[in-house]
Amino acid sequence: MEPNPWKTVSTRPIYENPWIALREDAVLTPSGTPGIYGVVHYKHLALGAIPIDAEGYTYLVGQYRYPLSAYSWEIPEGGGKLGQDPLAEIQRELLEETGLVAAHWQLLLKMHLSNSVSDEVAYVYLAWGLEQHEAQPDPTEKLRLLRLPVWEAIEKVHAGVITDSLSVAGFLRLECLLHRKALTLPPNAAP
Amino acid sequence: MEPNPWKTVSTRPIYENPWIALREDAVLTPSGTPGIYGVVHYKHLALGAIPIDAEGYTYLVGQYRYPLSAYSWEIPEGGGKLGQDPLAEIQRELLEETGLVAAHWQLLLKMHLSNSVSDEVAYVYLAWGLEQHEAQPDPTEKLRLLRLPVWEAIEKVHAGVITDSLSVAGFLRLECLLHRKALTLPPNAAP
Repeated sequence: MEPNPWKTVSTRPIYENPWIALREDAVLTPSGTPGIYGVVHYKHLALGAIPIDAEGYTYLVGQYRYPLSAYSWEIPEGGGKLGQDPLAEIQRELLEETGLVAAHWQLLLKMHLSNSVSDEVAYVYLAWGLEQHEAQPDPTEKLRLLRLPVWEAIEKVHAGVITDSLSVAGFLRLECLLHRKALTLPPNAAP
Repeated sequence: MEPNPWKTVSTRPIYENPWIALREDAVLTPSGTPGIYGVVHYKHLALGAIPIDAEGYTYLVGQYRYPLSAYSWEIPEGGGKLGQDPLAEIQRELLEETGLVAAHWQLLLKMHLSNSVSDEVAYVYLAWGLEQHEAQPDPTEKLRLLRLPVWEAIEKVHAGVITDSLSVAGFLRLECLLHRKALTLPPNAAP
């Protein structure tokens, strides 16, 4: 265990909404000088799933991302309640956004997205053994769904077309596991 | 170009420090219902570098991450001023944190770290042709430096020991490029 070299002198809540809470701490930095630290606490886990069907196709979700003022194609994602099982949460999100129910799940990675400012944690899963049910999209979202070969999706990461961090890291870990033969895709999904 | 399905009704600045600015917008969601959107604007780019020396070793930086209350081993990283050349900014950061000057640089990836809440953008570079100069660490930081074979660092991503998003995605893209033979490491860096 590494000791925390920062000292929190005082803490002041600044803002809160259903998704984030911002506080500003008065701190002593590791060198002992006084300073402030604005910390964004995330009230949800960032969860993502890469579903792969029997033909080696995956599904991307397209939506306009308000903070970026830009459209973004991504793996199916959603927020998971803190303290709940992230797997159950992403299973619910995948069903809502795509109508897919997967028989098999494997954790691909856990990441801290922006650790100099926030405590946000992400989990990305691989999901296979798919059954199509009816999607139940959040009515405040306007999602598009794209089914494409998983290798085409991976190429979109290498081409810089997919830039969402969960999608980028998730597809790259998937590719590494395929190169390492730690996973195999359905035969007609070969690159 | 996809049209923005969100309407911004009004915007209210909430908080600002040298690193972030938080605002709350009154919005109409894509379905037309009223809502709020708290957006965290980042005043810097998130920049990272994976330096590789002639022996196939890389360098990790260890530091306590205040928002996580946890110690983290990561690639050398720093904030780059918006509007400045990110490459020049990460060259300065790499020198400050490690004392390394690299003759060759290649962009490994561009990512949006947390696009449902923030506009933060990250760039991760590969750097080689290294010369050792004197490090000039920020006195408010307390950094440790670890030199290790690049494949050992990549294994720390697969083992879930490295969780910082820039480090995770950067090392995974590097591994993919090596598998694809789009890059070669010095001979004694083989896995």
